[in-house]
Amino acid sequence: MRDVAIIGIGMMKWGELWEKSIRDLCVEAALNCLDDAGIDRVDAIAIGSMSSGIFTGQEHLASLVPDYLGKRHTPATRVESACASGGLAVRTAFLEVASGVSDYALAIGVEKMTDVSGGGATYGLATAADQEYEAFHGVTFPGLYAMMANAHMDRYGTTREQLADVAVKNHKNGAKNPHAQYPFEVTREQVMKSVMIADPLRLFDCSPITDGAAAVLLAPLAEAKKLGKHAPVTIIGVGNATDAIALSQRPDMLKLEAVTHATKRALDMAGKKIEDVDFAEVHDCFTIAEILVMEAMGVVDAGKGGPATSDGYTAIDGKFPINPSGGLKAKGHPVGATGVAQVCETVAQLRGEAGARQIKGAKVGLTQNMGGSGGSCVVHVLEVK
Amino acid sequence: MRDVAIIGIGMMKWGELWEKSIRDLCVEAALNCLDDAGIDRVDAIAIGSMSSGIFTGQEHLASLVPDYLGKRHTPATRVESACASGGLAVRTAFLEVASGVSDYALAIGVEKMTDVSGGGATYGLATAADQEYEAFHGVTFPGLYAMMANAHMDRYGTTREQLADVAVKNHKNGAKNPHAQYPFEVTREQVMKSVMIADPLRLFDCSPITDGAAAVLLAPLAEAKKLGKHAPVTIIGVGNATDAIALSQRPDMLKLEAVTHATKRALDMAGKKIEDVDFAEVHDCFTIAEILVMEAMGVVDAGKGGPATSDGYTAIDGKFPINPSGGLKAKGHPVGATGVAQVCETVAQLRGEAGARQIKGAKVGLTQNMGGSGGSCVVHVLEVK
Repeated sequence: MRDVAIIGIGMMKWGELWEKSIRDLCVEAALNCLDDAGIDRVDAIAIGSMSSGIFTGQEHLASLVPDYLGKRHTPATRVESACASGGLAVRTAFLEVASGVSDYALAIGVEKMTDVSGGGATYGLATAADQEYEAFHGVTFPGLYAMMANAHMDRYGTTREQLADVAVKNHKNGAKNPHAQYPFEVTREQVMKSVMIADPLRLFDCSPITDGAAAVLLAPLAEAKKLGKHAPVTIIGVGNATDAIALSQRPDMLKLEAVTHATKRALDMAGKKIEDVDFAEVHDCFTIAEILVMEAMGVVDAGKGGPATSDGYTAIDGKFPINPSGGLKAKGHPVGATGVAQVCETVAQLRGEAGARQIKGAKVGLTQNMGGSGGSCVVHVLEVK
Repeated sequence: MRDVAIIGIGMMKWGELWEKSIRDLCVEAALNCLDDAGIDRVDAIAIGSMSSGIFTGQEHLASLVPDYLGKRHTPATRVESACASGGLAVRTAFLEVASGVSDYALAIGVEKMTDVSGGGATYGLATAADQEYEAFHGVTFPGLYAMMANAHMDRYGTTREQLADVAVKNHKNGAKNPHAQYPFEVTREQVMKSVMIADPLRLFDCSPITDGAAAVLLAPLAEAKKLGKHAPVTIIGVGNATDAIALSQRPDMLKLEAVTHATKRALDMAGKKIEDVDFAEVHDCFTIAEILVMEAMGVVDAGKGGPATSDGYTAIDGKFPINPSGGLKAKGHPVGATGVAQVCETVAQLRGEAGARQIKGAKVGLTQNMGGSGGSCVVHVLEVK
């Protein structure tokens, strides 16, 4: 297996982008990525999108994207694992390069969600749940995560304030991210007084509905070292794991086993322990999700995610910074793009190019991207030397 | 890159399977495959489905399928490239094994299309076209292929009878395939008198709407040789290519450039020429498609596909047999499953297990799976020693 590095990252301003179609989003992020890499060679493309079919009536992005990127004939694959589709795109590009099948592989994540007709974004998102045993009966994702939040509060004493503090921290970071959909700070009181969505989760506990894309360019490490424009960031660990799709079918609804397995696989491949990781971008689709993920990854013990957040353990200047980008909460959550954007942020941090939100001296970063209520998870461990 | 072999194949009876949900289809084909392989180890799963979201309201098959297969925690990826999604699943499983990331990789293709509400199967299928410049304006796939058929008849003198002969040949083969949706013969007259769909294409020029799944198990060739149950069939060539998604944006609407490029890439990797191939399973979504594909692959010169078909060149006992399985036309076309089923048939032929439709002495077979009107294509070259 060849060593693989990331040689280019491409973000764009996320938000309600009614003037840009899904093809425009992909092309803008991809061109930003190729500009950043300083080269224009693409041997293969992996596109992560959760449901371009339902959201925009456009499947077959594997044909559309190379076409509109001016790369006709280029091999392309669209991958999907609900909200983990972006992480899966990076992993698929990794397989292209690691195997030797392709040298320069572009991973793009995209979702166009804000001008959906018919059942709308909530219907589309619910297709990530078990259609026959969850979605059909009316449960939505805020409802599923609300059940997990209530159970966590009941078992561990996690407080409403601790949930709010996840949003406060992530918005504080996101306020310094020019690509974020909501680049402003919020107070604990604002979160706790925002409109109720699914008790105990309020509007500011939820990541937003977003249009956006992100892209990264991968190459063999040996090639990356010759380019010289940026310090190559090596993908030293890749982990992918799944779990029961329906929350009701798991032995313990507060244990995200897919996250635990994917993290362990990625760290084992990297030859690292969680203590060796300097920071992480994680999947805070709801405030409770960040707490559950911290615990499942072993950053803190089960039940300790809430207090750790309120104590500043995961702040940018804390012991284990989480979501320096602002996370899904502040940056936005175009579902298929999120996993790729996490890698963009991690590379920017490892290069020392993260500006006002830079984590000092970070050498090893981890990205954790999750599908549904935890039915799938993709983790990457990245290192700069 | 490691050499990769196919060690198990799993088909099932295709048709209007209203009593089976999409999860049932995946599990049935996968268990048939593991039974055939004689082992129960799966390190990674790649699932090809074009639009489970639109057709069944169920995305996130990457979580659902390992869950219902009794393989929780197994890494999984759903891939999509419209009707080439199945071929892409096999290619993705190939990358898993070739890279060394996984040893035993299961590729499953699936589509559940016959009990769709709302816009129905025609709406779902049209998402493989350019939504903004084709589908939005009302064009359907029968319409696109009808334009190609008219242009081919005009430029090369291809006749209505020659188109019908593609269906006659494929139904003759399909009549011997117990898994086929329509295992019966048809006459040239029946095809030419069937109801008009999009002039000149009639009902029997079109592949049907189908529920079904197929699966193959891949492993390193070195491992496969130790198993001993079947002669290992090696994947000696893999080719993936794309083209403009919209028919109107191609320099020549009768040249399927994605097919030409994918075939060349696969043959180059295999160190073979098309003359070295003993037979092929190709993407006859419409009768004209098989003719265009034969020409794009270089089996015959441009314009000669029609006469070659009527002359028996592509019959099971012809010089270059095409679609011994009955093709999409007779076997059915659950879009995401088709590319995997093509590989199942090719392996069965190379093992000498194809029964009444066996091609004598076949050692090298090729599969060609296409998305949309030719916007993407995946080709595999398989060999038995």
